[in-house]
Amino acid sequence: MPAKLHPPRISRARITGGFWADRQRTNREVTIPCVLDKCDETNRTRSLRLEWKPGADWEPHHFYDSDLAKAIEAAAYALELEPDPELEARLDGYIELFARAQQPDGYLNSYYAQKGFADRWTNLRDMHELYCAGHLFEAAVAHFRATGKRTLLDVAEKYADHIDATFGDGKIPGYPGHEEIELALVKLAEATNEERYLDLARFFIDERGREPHYFRLESERRGEVFDRHRHDANDYPSAYAYYQAHLPVREQADAEGHSVRACYLYAGMVDVAARTGDERLMEACRRLFASIAGRRMYISGGIGSQTHGERFSYDYDLPGESAYAETCAAISLVFFASRLANAELDSHYADVAERALYNGALGGISLSGDRFFYANPLTFHPTAPHLPHVRSDAERQPWYGCACCPPNIARLLASLGAYLYGVSGDDGDSAGGGPTVAVHLYAQSSLELDVAGTAVTVRQETNYPWDGRVVFTIDAQAPVELTLALRIPAWATGWTVTGPDGAPLVADAAPAPGGGLIIKRGYVYVRRTWTPGQTLCLDLPMEIRRTHAHEAVRDAGWQVALERGPLLYCAEGVDNGEALADLALPGEAALTAEHRDDLLGGCAVIRGSAVRRAAPTAGSGAPADRRGTPTAPLYASRPGRREVPFTAVPFALRNNRGVCEMRVWLAEV
Amino acid sequence: MPAKLHPPRISRARITGGFWADRQRTNREVTIPCVLDKCDETNRTRSLRLEWKPGADWEPHHFYDSDLAKAIEAAAYALELEPDPELEARLDGYIELFARAQQPDGYLNSYYAQKGFADRWTNLRDMHELYCAGHLFEAAVAHFRATGKRTLLDVAEKYADHIDATFGDGKIPGYPGHEEIELALVKLAEATNEERYLDLARFFIDERGREPHYFRLESERRGEVFDRHRHDANDYPSAYAYYQAHLPVREQADAEGHSVRACYLYAGMVDVAARTGDERLMEACRRLFASIAGRRMYISGGIGSQTHGERFSYDYDLPGESAYAETCAAISLVFFASRLANAELDSHYADVAERALYNGALGGISLSGDRFFYANPLTFHPTAPHLPHVRSDAERQPWYGCACCPPNIARLLASLGAYLYGVSGDDGDSAGGGPTVAVHLYAQSSLELDVAGTAVTVRQETNYPWDGRVVFTIDAQAPVELTLALRIPAWATGWTVTGPDGAPLVADAAPAPGGGLIIKRGYVYVRRTWTPGQTLCLDLPMEIRRTHAHEAVRDAGWQVALERGPLLYCAEGVDNGEALADLALPGEAALTAEHRDDLLGGCAVIRGSAVRRAAPTAGSGAPADRRGTPTAPLYASRPGRREVPFTAVPFALRNNRGVCEMRVWLAEV
Repeated sequence: MPAKLHPPRISRARITGGFWADRQRTNREVTIPCVLDKCDETNRTRSLRLEWKPGADWEPHHFYDSDLAKAIEAAAYALELEPDPELEARLDGYIELFARAQQPDGYLNSYYAQKGFADRWTNLRDMHELYCAGHLFEAAVAHFRATGKRTLLDVAEKYADHIDATFGDGKIPGYPGHEEIELALVKLAEATNEERYLDLARFFIDERGREPHYFRLESERRGEVFDRHRHDANDYPSAYAYYQAHLPVREQADAEGHSVRACYLYAGMVDVAARTGDERLMEACRRLFASIAGRRMYISGGIGSQTHGERFSYDYDLPGESAYAETCAAISLVFFASRLANAELDSHYADVAERALYNGALGGISLSGDRFFYANPLTFHPTAPHLPHVRSDAERQPWYGCACCPPNIARLLASLGAYLYGVSGDDGDSAGGGPTVAVHLYAQSSLELDVAGTAVTVRQETNYPWDGRVVFTIDAQAPVELTLALRIPAWATGWTVTGPDGAPLVADAAPAPGGGLIIKRGYVYVRRTWTPGQTLCLDLPMEIRRTHAHEAVRDAGWQVALERGPLLYCAEGVDNGEALADLALPGEAALTAEHRDDLLGGCAVIRGSAVRRAAPTAGSGAPADRRGTPTAPLYASRPGRREVPFTAVPFALRNNRGVCEMRVWLAEV
Repeated sequence: MPAKLHPPRISRARITGGFWADRQRTNREVTIPCVLDKCDETNRTRSLRLEWKPGADWEPHHFYDSDLAKAIEAAAYALELEPDPELEARLDGYIELFARAQQPDGYLNSYYAQKGFADRWTNLRDMHELYCAGHLFEAAVAHFRATGKRTLLDVAEKYADHIDATFGDGKIPGYPGHEEIELALVKLAEATNEERYLDLARFFIDERGREPHYFRLESERRGEVFDRHRHDANDYPSAYAYYQAHLPVREQADAEGHSVRACYLYAGMVDVAARTGDERLMEACRRLFASIAGRRMYISGGIGSQTHGERFSYDYDLPGESAYAETCAAISLVFFASRLANAELDSHYADVAERALYNGALGGISLSGDRFFYANPLTFHPTAPHLPHVRSDAERQPWYGCACCPPNIARLLASLGAYLYGVSGDDGDSAGGGPTVAVHLYAQSSLELDVAGTAVTVRQETNYPWDGRVVFTIDAQAPVELTLALRIPAWATGWTVTGPDGAPLVADAAPAPGGGLIIKRGYVYVRRTWTPGQTLCLDLPMEIRRTHAHEAVRDAGWQVALERGPLLYCAEGVDNGEALADLALPGEAALTAEHRDDLLGGCAVIRGSAVRRAAPTAGSGAPADRRGTPTAPLYASRPGRREVPFTAVPFALRNNRGVCEMRVWLAEV
């Protein structure tokens, strides 16, 4: 089995129906135009036009360029899936602005173009120039692949050449305070077949955290008294941990600091390690992944639990109400985990990618496609947004001053097909035994391959995530040799794989029936010569699961979360009344899933019986509320309980029916 | 029954043994010298000597004077209980510094004396001049009562006269940003028989929150663009709520803002309302008390749940780990509730005073008497002090930069006798039927009274709070007519009162047996002519109570707190292992109290059986810790449970055995 797979081109891995098709359509029709409009309305585009002058009533921001670049990238993916001359022309307009803003030496940053080039490259720690460059490169590659036009790619290459001439051994030994350019340079290297860009990515990764510390040298050059407490009031483990620059990356044991930066870096590290065979670097990636998935991740796949610094906290410190769990952070974890899934073919990675995708990331956008959450706490109370240490909005917002999340979710949704599969070789060429197609995620879709000159389509028919049956059909003109590697999610108890003849090939109760099948690291490998139209059926039982947290997660002690398939569920006030902390699920309570076509765009809800504590009898000393009405005492014995109906909805679909309380972790009694 | 009682003089209400005698001895021998030493060591005394010069390596602080004044007040109470020539001489030294620092016009503030008088009285909102004055007045009254010397009282009167000449109708219409002078002026009025000081207290209370708003006018005069978000990032309900100045006090419905300021103000309001018969003002006090006790108070009696602003939060927003619950705030609630107890004779008030005293306040000081907590969260994890939104220390500290709490707990402990009783008239003179002695709190103690010329001593013999039997003996030379009003705590189920002949007089199962007894608003009134040496026995069953919070307290949902008598209990890691969120008390679990002479200075512990969730079997995809050791998965099904032994200790005695986890609210299953 090949150790290294890669994602398919977006145009070759299409969502063809079901859950994600609806979301992709909304993304194309609503979200992408909305995000571009917002860039126009909120000075992003204006800044790229270099319209700012001293004294103006607006200010350019040092990462405005990245918002527009991410929006272009999202639009390019949509174009790759479906031509849209109007959208293409709109992108041409933005691209012209980028080209015009580019300096003769290749440098391109609207902030410094307006504020003065003298200070460019003087504050890599804070000023996001390399971050903006990275997003530009990703946009350029996407646009080139979608349209074949080199307009933005040329700009990107010229800028990358400038950066390559500026940074490196014997040049400036710096690296970005906000990572992202590393993975972007790998994409650019692949799109242009230019190894220098991969080398530059490796340089940025290798240089990070080395002594003498670049951020310190740089800040001394700026004449700053470096405030080591910046972004890090706790001084743990060092101020540079915020930037993942406290140690050389190969020595880092825990995922630390700003979580989006962290996973962008780690994703780039996987890219470089996989392409260079750097096993020590890959080992660091595995270790950092284990730190996240084993000790620092919400059950939603959200990461970065600390509002202060949008950062990772201590192991198991995963507070519900004050969770930050930025939408971008869940997306960055999808990036990181998906790359590891392709590099390692261990289902543990795609399990996490799926968790983050379906819950932490998807919950960041409304069903309507034009409202966004930045923070995604697991417990919400309507007063919480007013609490100083809580960063949650009562409702998804149309835009943010720091607007990283909206275009980020747009580009993830538009490119989702590429995350479903991992393929070996270039679209399937392999050394022998046929190419391997790993199916990391299940969704109604089709993957086009070219196997030894034969066009092959692997089709998935499924109503996943509502139903766990997935039927694969191999369409080709002639028999084709191919290994399908199907991920068995860790949550799937009682799964089966059924062959073309309807006979079970393998099931988790009977794990080794032979027939050319291998089960390894959570993937079932079905290796055979497929006759045209042959099918394979995977059944993943969609049981409701009661999931508990590790004993050290003090915010989830003796509580339970409900999951079904890849979806995390939550209780909302609109279904269950207020005071959700007072609602408990008895351990023995029967829970049933019920599909509701009329609810939240069609979804399975979980129903059952819960209990609430009996109210105490208000005694003579009972307090009154501010209108003088007697209220229940604040502290009293309430040993009784009463049964109440219970409904849970997918966490990702919360807050689409107005503002109300919400809880993921429910008391279990 | 008289509606208005007042506290006895400290020298006439003495703790004579048991729980509080130990604490008072430590307070006298360790805490008071320690606090005075710290004032000397940390520039408080130096500032009062006016030693600061521009360019010095230290800065005076605008409330340094108050720390020293509170320490003097505490020492004076100790002197009143027990002469100590050395301590008295030490106080004379500080008092001489205060006298020397006083200006010819009476003004006295070391900060402005050193920083320049030009700015005095220009920023009442922030600069604590009136607050420092109030603490000076309290110290002066205490010192005068203890020693009979007028040295500090003269300074106080001269300063009060200056303030009276400066503020009021037709003068400056201002009032303090940090309240405290109101209750101090009432004390000063009583000590000096000067009605003007009571009038001034009333002026400060009445003027508060009126429009045009003094704080706004004042800040405009300073040329400030008033940052209305200062102290109040949430803008709820207005920036002035932080100072309880958002509305005139009679219109305030909820306890808002900085909780210490709030209860100091409310205590002064009770004092003024009780002395002036201002029923609207008293009604506001009752309403604000109900807001606290009914919706905004921790089960520890701690208040001010928001770290940001040390302030009250929304109703029922009482987070455990991020609780602020400053020691001073619990003390201020003792002040407020005790005054209401005397004004209203409703046990609801003394219940809260007792809760705050035994738990929120007492927990602020170590058993050794020289370490102090500022914040008193109900849940502690060793990593929490490193979290930006949590304000807790891993261990009690010897001192704080903002050192309000240490001298505050010292003065409370030294004057505790005055909080046990409420007496009618001057030490017992009353219109007829004999004086009333209300016993608000139970403790081994003696109260001296003068009843119609006869010296009477009311003695309490008890091992409270470890045991609920309290024996009262009336010692006098001749039969004496006296009404004892004994508070029946709301928690006391099955209490009895037994007469001198050993026959039950009344019990809660048989509430009206006659015999001259009345039970009203939580007090049992025993009105009779007592022959010398007659006794009365109150039995308060010390059952272990399982207490639950109101359904809206989302941080205590389906959790239970253990209480016994007035004491709140907690589980500590040293007894129960770590991961206390994973520890649950089955609803039916038997719990027993066991007195341990060897533990924590002698205390009753609660023992029983708890359960922990079974660990899941780590699957193949189990993550590894940072050293590569496999760890339990972060999320898994853990339906089993295992029994573990359980021990709880009094919350106030926590953290006297090293740093470890601690929880008050425990899962109940």
